[in-house]
Amino acid sequence: MERTYIKDLKNKIGEEIQVSGWVNVRRDHGKLIFVDLRDVTGTVQMVVLPNQTEAHIIAEKIRSEWVLEIKGKINKRPEKMTNQDEENGEIEIEVLEVKVISEAKELPFEKDTELNLDTYLDYLPLTLRTKEKQAIFRVQSVILQAFREFLISEHYTEIQTPKIIGEDAEGGAGVFEVDYFKNKAYLATSPQFYKQIMVGVFEKVFTTGNVFRAEKHSTTRHLNEYTSLDFELGFIKDHHDIMKMENKLLQFIAEELKEKCQKEFTLLKADLPEIPSEIPFMKLKEAQEIIKKNYGGNCVGEPDLEPQHERWLCEYAKKEFNSDFIFITHYPVEKRPMYTYEDENDRGFTKSFDLLFRGIEITTGGQRIHNYEDLVENIKKKGLNPEKFSFYLQAFKYGMPAHGGLGMGLERLTAKFLNINNVKEVTLFPREVNRIDTLINK
Amino acid sequence: MERTYIKDLKNKIGEEIQVSGWVNVRRDHGKLIFVDLRDVTGTVQMVVLPNQTEAHIIAEKIRSEWVLEIKGKINKRPEKMTNQDEENGEIEIEVLEVKVISEAKELPFEKDTELNLDTYLDYLPLTLRTKEKQAIFRVQSVILQAFREFLISEHYTEIQTPKIIGEDAEGGAGVFEVDYFKNKAYLATSPQFYKQIMVGVFEKVFTTGNVFRAEKHSTTRHLNEYTSLDFELGFIKDHHDIMKMENKLLQFIAEELKEKCQKEFTLLKADLPEIPSEIPFMKLKEAQEIIKKNYGGNCVGEPDLEPQHERWLCEYAKKEFNSDFIFITHYPVEKRPMYTYEDENDRGFTKSFDLLFRGIEITTGGQRIHNYEDLVENIKKKGLNPEKFSFYLQAFKYGMPAHGGLGMGLERLTAKFLNINNVKEVTLFPREVNRIDTLINK
Repeated sequence: MERTYIKDLKNKIGEEIQVSGWVNVRRDHGKLIFVDLRDVTGTVQMVVLPNQTEAHIIAEKIRSEWVLEIKGKINKRPEKMTNQDEENGEIEIEVLEVKVISEAKELPFEKDTELNLDTYLDYLPLTLRTKEKQAIFRVQSVILQAFREFLISEHYTEIQTPKIIGEDAEGGAGVFEVDYFKNKAYLATSPQFYKQIMVGVFEKVFTTGNVFRAEKHSTTRHLNEYTSLDFELGFIKDHHDIMKMENKLLQFIAEELKEKCQKEFTLLKADLPEIPSEIPFMKLKEAQEIIKKNYGGNCVGEPDLEPQHERWLCEYAKKEFNSDFIFITHYPVEKRPMYTYEDENDRGFTKSFDLLFRGIEITTGGQRIHNYEDLVENIKKKGLNPEKFSFYLQAFKYGMPAHGGLGMGLERLTAKFLNINNVKEVTLFPREVNRIDTLINK
Repeated sequence: MERTYIKDLKNKIGEEIQVSGWVNVRRDHGKLIFVDLRDVTGTVQMVVLPNQTEAHIIAEKIRSEWVLEIKGKINKRPEKMTNQDEENGEIEIEVLEVKVISEAKELPFEKDTELNLDTYLDYLPLTLRTKEKQAIFRVQSVILQAFREFLISEHYTEIQTPKIIGEDAEGGAGVFEVDYFKNKAYLATSPQFYKQIMVGVFEKVFTTGNVFRAEKHSTTRHLNEYTSLDFELGFIKDHHDIMKMENKLLQFIAEELKEKCQKEFTLLKADLPEIPSEIPFMKLKEAQEIIKKNYGGNCVGEPDLEPQHERWLCEYAKKEFNSDFIFITHYPVEKRPMYTYEDENDRGFTKSFDLLFRGIEITTGGQRIHNYEDLVENIKKKGLNPEKFSFYLQAFKYGMPAHGGLGMGLERLTAKFLNINNVKEVTLFPREVNRIDTLINK
């Protein structure tokens, strides 16, 4: 007999079916044994009657998380037993045959217990098995695929970029070192150089994949390994072309979520954000004046924003523009990487931007330098050695259009869409300073 | 003026347009200067007439790979100047205005020179800028997206798996070591454990991403970093369910390529493969008998196939079954990883398979052990310590369905679809023992 998914049972009342899944819970009423079975599509109540001797003997031993294959009959529940608030609350399966696919050990805790983060992480193969977690990572998968579909529809080409790199390219701390056949190599903190090189080949490219940050501090905003969504676009006028593209991209993602993840948003009590057709933008210095005037924070002249400043600006954008997003542009030259384009009309400041979403920066992007001599010059200004960038610099030596792009973290984006505070909760297997799946024993 | 893509020029004869792109070549006929311009959509010939004084002065300096923005008029070429074999051979652009976006240094070689692999790799930011290379990587991007679309249509959920792992999990050589905050960590050689764990959450999952192999030997088949396409499927009967899924997946990919990459296949002189509705399959021992009988190779009783054996079997499959693919099943227990399911009806052999395609193995897959005790036992049999797998083992401790899956390398798949011999030629930035972009100086 073919397996029926639990979501389809209500269309087969009166029929004999086969279902498979995990036991959520068994309730033993003596003669009647009730078992809630879960598959990826839903949950259903099953009942084992005392006349089903064989099934009854097995059912007496069943515990949570056992995997079963059941033959049974779908019955409508008597009126007084139906429960409109429960999934499949109007039916139950009368069990005819039980096959145990896998037993399970006793659980270390009830599955609906509130756990602290460390315990949750210690037991991920078990603690990920909840509706809430399924919903989070389903939403994440839809965001990711929407990112790709939108860019493909805009004629971008997807590229694969390597994660093992030869030089600690942006000259910063925070890079993991790899033993590469007795030589030093590093793990990429972004696909930046490769996507720029590929603008020379395809004009418009995107890539999604893991990137790595050897950051020692543990916060609710940072991960040591995360999924970066990147695109890069040639023949632009300036950074506003990138911002417009991101605006359209976010609208597309929101539409996809609305269409495909209604159930998940309801379950997680999250609202889809407001994305105006033109997300408001302002220069960093204007933003700092607004913070000073409206919230009393004094950051005028600082090269970057603090987390509290980002929250205030989002509050402001919501109030003034009914937008959950705001672009902040024109970060100072010294605060941005060597490939960032300086605004010829606002010297000392760059054609770069951050996008803030519900209180946190989710994107960094901007126009890049495309002139070879300017780029070499800028590398030197940053105190770096252009020879170390000789491979990358070829792209510019042999002709590059004006271009720009952005990178955003899938986890932060997911967290903000779902109003979840800690990025670790929207990462399947988060890496921490002291944890790679299990705690690291020093 | 809005930019017109070169592919759309032929619909605008007589109009004034703006185009942007790279100079393929300049031909100076004294008074007339011809420039072939390339953008991501195609190539077109432009002519600068002597009466366009300003444009003419600039055009005299133009060299290959300069990036230009051109205003011009599209003219039909006179009858005798048209060239049906040339892209846009019936039109040319009369240049009215030239804006130089970027100059380019003199090229180290003509772009159509045959290069040896090392020179090709040294100059990738330049050597990737050809129609052939664009075609290869366009095909690759379509394969990748088709993989995802097929599995999404089959209700798989995409997952993100970490690449930094805590244990050299499969206990082999060939693993890169990472300095993880003064602790040892490793780079994942596959997403195997995580996708199995996630079967416990979503039943059907897939993931695409970089994996890493510290293999010292340099061959046309191996890469130190590549893109792995993986899926894993719960509630299966046996490995044939996985093989059937792959069969349908490959057919879908081939259809997508047929629809979207006709031009690329023609340019690269490649044929789409024959994929029967049921790809032939045979056990390893049968395959070895066939090799002996038909090709005189003596490998009966060996635990695995040599490259020459794989080529013979593909020759055989093509001749006997008109299939470019053949599954070989039932590799011996000692040759397969500890999670592989032993066939209860053929002891000593596993419910595993390789898929051979045009002479090479492109997939390894099979059914996995889902019973906790069996898995612990098997880990011990392989001489490994179950405690090191405690995180992974939780999935089994708390109930897992019968499941299986496969992994395939995107680069090998691309190479075989396009009949290209060396996987390095279908990898944008291949890592070698002695090369990370540039050669490594010891």
